Order: sequence, then structure tokens, then C-alpha cells
Amino acid sequence: MSERVIGILGGMGPLATAELFRRIVEKTPAKRDQDHPRIIIYNNPKIPDRTAFILGNGPDPRPELVASAKKLERWGVDFIIMPCNTAHFFAETIQKAIRVPLVSMIEETAEVVRETGLRKVGLLATNGTIKGLVYHRALLKHGVQIAVPGKNDQAQVMRAIYEGIKAGNLEMGRELLLKVAKKLEMRSDGIITGCTEVSVALKQEDLSVPLIDPMNVIAEKAVKLALGLEDL
Amino acid sequence: MSERVIGILGGMGPLATAELFRRIVEKTPAKRDQDHPRIIIYNNPKIPDRTAFILGNGPDPRPELVASAKKLERWGVDFIIMPCNTAHFFAETIQKAIRVPLVSMIEETAEVVRETGLRKVGLLATNGTIKGLVYHRALLKHGVQIAVPGKNDQAQVMRAIYEGIKAGNLEMGRELLLKVAKKLEMRSDGIITGCTEVSVALKQEDLSVPLIDPMNVIAEKAVKLALGLEDL
Repeated sequence: MSERVIGILGGMGPLATAELFRRIVEKTPAKRDQDHPRIIIYNNPKIPDRTAFILGNGPDPRPELVASAKKLERWGVDFIIMPCNTAHFFAETIQKAIRVPLVSMIEETAEVVRETGLRKVGLLATNGTIKGLVYHRALLKHGVQIAVPGKNDQAQVMRAIYEGIKAGNLEMGRELLLKVAKKLEMRSDGIITGCTEVSVALKQEDLSVPLIDPMNVIAEKAVKLALGLEDL
Repeated sequence: MSERVIGILGGMGPLATAELFRRIVEKTPAKRDQDHPRIIIYNNPKIPDRTAFILGNGPDPRPELVASAKKLERWGVDFIIMPCNTAHFFAETIQKAIRVPLVSMIEETAEVVRETGLRKVGLLATNGTIKGLVYHRALLKHGVQIAVPGKNDQAQVMRAIYEGIKAGNLEMGRELLLKVAKKLEMRSDGIITGCTEVSVALKQEDLSVPLIDPMNVIAEKAVKLALGLEDL
């Protein structure tokens, strides 16, 4: 099978997009530049905030999401991945507008959770991802339960993501997330870092239960698809 | 002045491209996703090796370089930067094929060297960059002298870049580079990490003389241009 061009619909946020790019490069078995697949990245941070819209407090991100996906398709990518968990709330709308596959970070992660045999996972994610049932829909069909932080802790997760990592204060964001994660892992047998900003900040070493990182899951999937090791 | 879309002609190598992307994001004064500029990255690792061609041992990278730059232009970027020092040997050829500016990492670095007041800089770069006089041409017009590693040391630099960093062995590459840099800094008053793979591996803390990192120079320039703080 021949190589495929990876399309990354990014900018949500930009640091997470850079991190996903780096992980794809590092996970590629390559001895020289030319062994790597082509990647086209559209880092479009102008896409309106996904959570704000889902909660009814902001402009609709769908027109810009769809336009960005169409651009990537026109530029010649063979499939698209999106380093933003919350944006997957709109995955069907995006997929309907393009012919190339949008490979879902959520569905791939749910599959890994199932394979790992976890029964109840803690979810560190935005209010939009939680209220929009982005992971709930994908995991419940595998019979996996979800634990989310309590109201005050969830407010700290949002602060970590928006005032911490997205605003360039990585350490502040990391400390807030660690506190919430420590409590969440006491009532779950695995933790999903279900927001790309959380993926940037938390590592397996920080936890005593398995950490399922959607950004790693989609990076590994993208490498296999790009190298033609798996069917689309 | 309005914002500009950054175009990155990358893949030379992919890890260096990911690192440049991250530095641009980190250097952007932004409090939220939407404050960041748009970036389009064409990570095209299929561009033939630049050094091999300059030394007469490999296929011509110019057709693929020019085609990639034209694609970025067609996709709507306002200027192009290239995280590969050696590829700047072909900068004029690329610029002639496109209307948007190719902002030269080499010229910008030469300007920083001049402003820093360095008289003689050590150059850690590929054989292609050295033999092609990429930095020599830019620095000599400012009256700055260049020191390059001796023959055996230069072979170690090439090993560090190709068998080390480009092949995924970052630590091995870093150790080789450190040894050469320690010797080179004894006969220069600053060091240019004149290959993006060297930029990834060496930091200011490793040296006792100022380190001029072209990747930082072009990242800062790109942010200013993208935010409309400087004219093109």
C-alpha cells in the first residue's frame, strides 16, 4: 500500500497542534527525512471556541471548521485528524462536508479503552466535551462508565485549560490538573486526558492508574495510516 | 496592520519543523487560541537531501522545493519561512518562482550577529551549508568572520545530524555536537547553530559563548510579521 498524506485540522489550540505534530514525527519509524510521510497542517486558531458554543455562550464554530476541512481536502490530504477533543462534537457535520475520512480521535480512544479492559474511566475534559457527551456516546456503547470531576474541580480543570495552558502558563495549568487528577483516579481505573491541553500537561508518571492519552492514540493511528500499514 | 498567514516549507527535517512550529506558538503573545495567527505547514520530507546535491552526490531538490513553495502560495500564505539552513542555498531559485516573500533565516540571522557585535562566529552546519557558502555570503558582507570545525570534527557534526537527530537518536547527536562545540567556541566569540537539527539539540546553557540560533531568530521574525508588527 502506498503512503498517505496526513491532514491536521489544528489551531485548537496551537500548542497542542505543535505537540501532536512532534509526536507523529517521533512515532514514525524513520532513519532519514525521506522516510517520513507528508503532512499538511492548517493551524487555524480563528475557529471560535467550541465549548462556548456548545454551552450557548459563543459564535458557531461549524462554518470555520467545515471551511478548514474543505481546504485541507483541496490541498491534497488523504485523511484528516483534529487535535481538539471538543471539536469532535461537530465531527458528523465536518465529515458530511468532505469526501476524505475524518479519523476520529474519540472513536480510536474508545477502542483503546475497550482493549485495555477498563470498566470505569475518569475524564479530564472541557465543559463542552462533557456536556456535549462527546466521550460518553463513544464509551457507553462499549459498556465503559465515565467519572467526571465534581463541580468545583471541573471549574479548576477549565481554569487550567484556558487560563493555564492556552494562555501560555503551562506550569500553573499542570498544577491545577494534578490536584483534580489525584482525586479522580481514586474513583476510576484509568484516566482519559480528554482535552489536548491536558495531554500537553499530564504524563503517565503523574498518575497511579493507566493514563489514556487521545493525542498519543491518534498520533499512532495517523502514522500507521500514513505509512499504509492500515486501511482507511 | 492586519494579520498575516505564516507559511512553513518544512520536512527538512520533520522534527526541526515541529520544533519551529512550537517556538512560534510559544513566542506569540496570546491569551487565547484566537489571538494566534494562522499557520499553514507543508511538511514535505520527500524533498531530496540538500547537502547531497550541493556536494554532487544526489538528486536535485529544486523541483520539489519550488513546487512546495508554490503550493503554499496557492494555499494562501502571506510569506514563507524554511526551517532548513542548507535549503537556503536555493533561496533565490525559490523566490523567483513565487510572488510572496521567502523570508530568509540566513539573512535575519546575519543581521542578529551584526547587532550582537560578534566579530568571529563558529558555524555548526552541514557540509552543504559550509561548502555552499550559505552563511559565508551573508556574514562576510557585515565583516563577520566564520570559523568552521576541522575535517574530523566536521565529520562528527554530519554524523550527529544524519545518524543522530534525523534518525531519531537525539541524545547521541547531542553528545557528538557538544564535543565539537566545546572546541569551536575556543576560537570564536559566538556559535551559530546553523542546521535546524543542531538547533533542536544544543542550548545556550551548553556553551560559554553566545549561541545564535537561526531557528529562534526566524521564529521571532515570523511572529512579528504575522501579527503585523513589522513590514514585509
